[in-house]
Amino acid sequence: MKRVAIVMGSQSDGPTMKHAADMLNRFGIEYHAEVVSAHRTPHLLQEFSETAADKGFQVIIAGAGGAAHLPGMIAAYTHLPVLGVPVKSSKLSGVDSLYSIVQMPKGVAVGTLAIGEAGAANAGLLAAQIIGLSDQDVSEKIKQFRSEQTQDVLENHKLDF
Amino acid sequence: MKRVAIVMGSQSDGPTMKHAADMLNRFGIEYHAEVVSAHRTPHLLQEFSETAADKGFQVIIAGAGGAAHLPGMIAAYTHLPVLGVPVKSSKLSGVDSLYSIVQMPKGVAVGTLAIGEAGAANAGLLAAQIIGLSDQDVSEKIKQFRSEQTQDVLENHKLDF
Amino acid sequence: MKRVAIVMGSQSDGPTMKHAADMLNRFGIEYHAEVVSAHRTPHLLQEFSETAADKGFQVIIAGAGGAAHLPGMIAAYTHLPVLGVPVKSSKLSGVDSLYSIVQMPKGVAVGTLAIGEAGAANAGLLAAQIIGLSDQDVSEKIKQFRSEQTQDVLENHKLDF
Amino acid sequence: MKRVAIVMGSQSDGPTMKHAADMLNRFGIEYHAEVVSAHRTPHLLQEFSETAADKGFQVIIAGAGGAAHLPGMIAAYTHLPVLGVPVKSSKLSGVDSLYSIVQMPKGVAVGTLAIGEAGAANAGLLAAQIIGLSDQDVSEKIKQFRSEQTQDVLENHKLDF
Amino acid sequence: MKRVAIVMGSQSDGPTMKHAADMLNRFGIEYHAEVVSAHRTPHLLQEFSETAADKGFQVIIAGAGGAAHLPGMIAAYTHLPVLGVPVKSSKLSGVDSLYSIVQMPKGVAVGTLAIGEAGAANAGLLAAQIIGLSDQDVSEKIKQFRSEQTQDVLENHKLDF
Amino acid sequence: MKRVAIVMGSQSDGPTMKHAADMLNRFGIEYHAEVVSAHRTPHLLQEFSETAADKGFQVIIAGAGGAAHLPGMIAAYTHLPVLGVPVKSSKLSGVDSLYSIVQMPKGVAVGTLAIGEAGAANAGLLAAQIIGLSDQDVSEKIKQFRSEQTQDVLENHKLDF
Amino acid sequence: MKRVAIVMGSQSDGPTMKHAADMLNRFGIEYHAEVVSAHRTPHLLQEFSETAADKGFQVIIAGAGGAAHLPGMIAAYTHLPVLGVPVKSSKLSGVDSLYSIVQMPKGVAVGTLAIGEAGAANAGLLAAQIIGLSDQDVSEKIKQFRSEQTQDVLENHKLDF
Amino acid sequence: MKRVAIVMGSQSDGPTMKHAADMLNRFGIEYHAEVVSAHRTPHLLQEFSETAADKGFQVIIAGAGGAAHLPGMIAAYTHLPVLGVPVKSSKLSGVDSLYSIVQMPKGVAVGTLAIGEAGAANAGLLAAQIIGLSDQDVSEKIKQFRSEQTQDVLENHKLDF
Repeated sequence: MKRVAIVMGSQSDGPTMKHAADMLNRFGIEYHAEVVSAHRTPHLLQEFSETAADKGFQVIIAGAGGAAHLPGMIAAYTHLPVLGVPVKSSKLSGVDSLYSIVQMPKGVAVGTLAIGEAGAANAGLLAAQIIGLSDQDVSEKIKQFRSEQTQDVLENHKLDF
Repeated sequence: MKRVAIVMGSQSDGPTMKHAADMLNRFGIEYHAEVVSAHRTPHLLQEFSETAADKGFQVIIAGAGGAAHLPGMIAAYTHLPVLGVPVKSSKLSGVDSLYSIVQMPKGVAVGTLAIGEAGAANAGLLAAQIIGLSDQDVSEKIKQFRSEQTQDVLENHKLDF
Repeated sequence: MKRVAIVMGSQSDGPTMKHAADMLNRFGIEYHAEVVSAHRTPHLLQEFSETAADKGFQVIIAGAGGAAHLPGMIAAYTHLPVLGVPVKSSKLSGVDSLYSIVQMPKGVAVGTLAIGEAGAANAGLLAAQIIGLSDQDVSEKIKQFRSEQTQDVLENHKLDF
Repeated sequence: MKRVAIVMGSQSDGPTMKHAADMLNRFGIEYHAEVVSAHRTPHLLQEFSETAADKGFQVIIAGAGGAAHLPGMIAAYTHLPVLGVPVKSSKLSGVDSLYSIVQMPKGVAVGTLAIGEAGAANAGLLAAQIIGLSDQDVSEKIKQFRSEQTQDVLENHKLDF
Repeated sequence: MKRVAIVMGSQSDGPTMKHAADMLNRFGIEYHAEVVSAHRTPHLLQEFSETAADKGFQVIIAGAGGAAHLPGMIAAYTHLPVLGVPVKSSKLSGVDSLYSIVQMPKGVAVGTLAIGEAGAANAGLLAAQIIGLSDQDVSEKIKQFRSEQTQDVLENHKLDF
Repeated sequence: MKRVAIVMGSQSDGPTMKHAADMLNRFGIEYHAEVVSAHRTPHLLQEFSETAADKGFQVIIAGAGGAAHLPGMIAAYTHLPVLGVPVKSSKLSGVDSLYSIVQMPKGVAVGTLAIGEAGAANAGLLAAQIIGLSDQDVSEKIKQFRSEQTQDVLENHKLDF
Repeated sequence: MKRVAIVMGSQSDGPTMKHAADMLNRFGIEYHAEVVSAHRTPHLLQEFSETAADKGFQVIIAGAGGAAHLPGMIAAYTHLPVLGVPVKSSKLSGVDSLYSIVQMPKGVAVGTLAIGEAGAANAGLLAAQIIGLSDQDVSEKIKQFRSEQTQDVLENHKLDF
Repeated sequence: MKRVAIVMGSQSDGPTMKHAADMLNRFGIEYHAEVVSAHRTPHLLQEFSETAADKGFQVIIAGAGGAAHLPGMIAAYTHLPVLGVPVKSSKLSGVDSLYSIVQMPKGVAVGTLAIGEAGAANAGLLAAQIIGLSDQDVSEKIKQFRSEQTQDVLENHKLDF
């Protein structure tokens, strides 16, 4: 069963959002990925968001750039946790994306990650952490990932100075 | 007939958006004003936007602050011209509102005005200019307003230095 | 008859502003395009702006970068709706252009679009939406464009993850 | 049992972070609140973070201002989901807090909310949404809250213009 | 004879621009002060700028806030040196004013001073320095002012710590 | 006689500041160009600044990047008009340079131009405008330059759309 | 013997820089405090900086706002460690001060602290840490201060939620 | 004996931080260089910081990018002076790194240098200046370096204009 949905505003957000998928793969969490444009397909956005819980999704990851309305509008239509990824924009480096996603008003929340690839990967990780609260297997895999990550730094901490 | 709709994300945007209404009053253009929250009342947003043309509105003025999704989402649902007013936010002075409103992607447009009261007033003025394209009476009133405005500066250009 | 004028501060703004022209072409709206520099040809700016209405233009699209005074100064001389496009600047990514265009004082309005190509395209679209208020043919073409655009996203929403 | 921990860098963050507690109260979710300073009590931070899961916490909400290291360092020590609240700083309005919290590197995630009170309230809401994934009662209360919130806007959408 | 013109976009800029006048008074340089609005009185702007040299002005000081087009447009119409003062704006603290004034394109120059009162005072000082190049009396007064200013710091450098 | 000094913080500022020299060449104004580093050669800075007037310089153009102290420190040592050029910095695009140069305190003035090449060219132009106040020949050349510049736009205003 | 010099650009920086003095007092480190203006008293700046080592100062703390050249210029004249405190400016909240102080070019260093009071206090602390490297008594006092500070948080970590 | 430790958040910070090492080499100061990740190896960070003084380090240089918690967290664990280098980040040019490092709260200090290579080099220089307070040989070498640096500018101050 697909427990996470990864949506993004356009095909051009794909290379960034792929990092969320890669992270979920690492934990054996199946996901659904789809382009949903807040501005060009608002009805799809509504339909997607309102049926997301019934389809079994537990977390929604939404990435968008510029006037990035997608994460916030999905959050407006669902009770599932929504994680937002500000995609780097061509003109303002993603500051516009970040502000548009993170500055949500009281009452409708989006958990926002870093701008770009790191943020997308961490959206996958945070989704896994949420799922791990009720899935021991995922929880163990996260611990192992974190442990390996630590090990990796420890084994490569020498510098060629 | 009400030819302009003024909508805003919350009651707290009222004092700012009142300036749009004042400007329209000056030109004898009737308007409808209402709170429509993109995040708290997304269905109302959709319904409002999709019926706006049929109700006879010609221009929609939308004001919002922070992650200001209202103008862009209205534009996603209607073919009418949408003018956006970034309301000054308590934390980031309206830069977040401005970026959220103005940085729309290609294919769905919002004509954005200045942050705050001046922007709201000018949204009313620009709406009138648009209506004035096909309403000679409004057009004349705009010319008179602009002329009086010029006259007002000319008569008060002395400085007490 | 040419119903839209596209002006820009310099030849170097051409590749950006071309997107406005492309959008107007899509709706069968004829336009006039010309370089008018606020700072190097202020008399031309005045003459252009004051005669724009008589020449039959209904909307003026003005693009400029840096201390982008062109849209605001045109608006100072005409009663026609003016749409401003902040062209990306080489040093400040267009934030200077954006602030110079959008932060107009009360009483003279410029409807501002996004920085760069997307903004130019949307200036063309918004101009068409304004013209579409009194031109059924244009209005239908806009609806069709918007519908095709939606269809295009729907048909290409699969991701190769 | 206390399922959420609300921690903050100093007593002065209390009035902001109180909004997270208020939101959790609304959903009947018990919480633990404590001052933990990343810079002045780093050992407490470590001990708190490493024992948080065993104490039964499911989500950690961390608020801090300026060089806001608290949320990210907690995330470095725990596998629980961490939500970060950028507290408005006296000099830079919270932009420093926001960047310090949201720009986490790949591999350690913090779900970041808006600057200030709205962000704190939404951290409480998002924590509840996460808990609601496995607690039907909380989930129902969230739906009711969201519904009441919508109703509240609908009943107060008239403007005194 | 009035050798400096101090112009500003609106009466509300008066308290800021008064500091330019005060500085000129200190050097015995007569000035003319007037409100000239780029957007509301563009013809006055043109007429003022084109006749400034013939009226005997040697330097023009122009202050404006927001989309501050006044200094740049005056410079477009005259060969006299133009000094620009970014007036603090209510929403963006004068960053918009600064960018609008300082980021002039190659070929039309505005010498820009600091945001607000300090900038206005220094515009007066720089105008005096320019005039002092050909007026020995002014030059001596500037040296005396600078010397007194230095003396003033030297005599008040003790701190009550 | 060399009437303008062009100084800059390092050899790497040369390509930018060359534009000031080119502009002065156009008006037949001789100049002296030299690297003077505020931080690495402070004694040279002092000696240069204090002897500048006696050497016959009338205007000093100073370009620097990053923590750009050169223009302001020269102004601290001389009564001549100082024009500052913020050189684009590798990390912050010249915003740091701009703020360091333009935000001078009351009592010591720097007339600041745009970031980068355009600013350097305009520093040359403004210096010429200042010199032109007492040199009819330079004044005529500036008028001619401005006229040709206008002519150049007028002859190349067609766009290949 | 006075081992630390605290200098600042103007009397108005006193309330901020007092926090540096308070911190040094806590460690029993004597200091000299004085107003030295980079722009109004450049000769004093030079004389102060070049004699600082001979006077027995070991660390120089310099605070300034706006185009804050004081710390960097002191560093240009001395081999002693210089710590810079960006004083909050009235227009740009100290971002201008911060950039002017921290963005020093390679070869002349300023250790920069936070904007405002916290930064001033920490400049005093860092100066003490530097002195503590060769003064066991100061080192012990710092450890005690840090320990008390930690204790203080631990004893006041309860929140009235 | 190694008197300076250079640590950084990841291998990718190596090319930047190498400049600190190069500077120390110039003064004959031995150093230890290592990757220590605040988020991926928090226990190593603690252990490193708490044993740094006993290992004989006198100054710690820490470089990091994005949500750059490394310098501040090291400072939280040690009484040694900590110098922070904001590494240029891929999305926000290092403004996020700068704010995360410099905006430390009162009571735990980090002396922050410029963004990127210049800042890394200057961290090495400032560390040497601190060591030079009690090491005459290092102090002499710094004076020589500074003198050569000055000489270098003086000998290459000609410009090919």
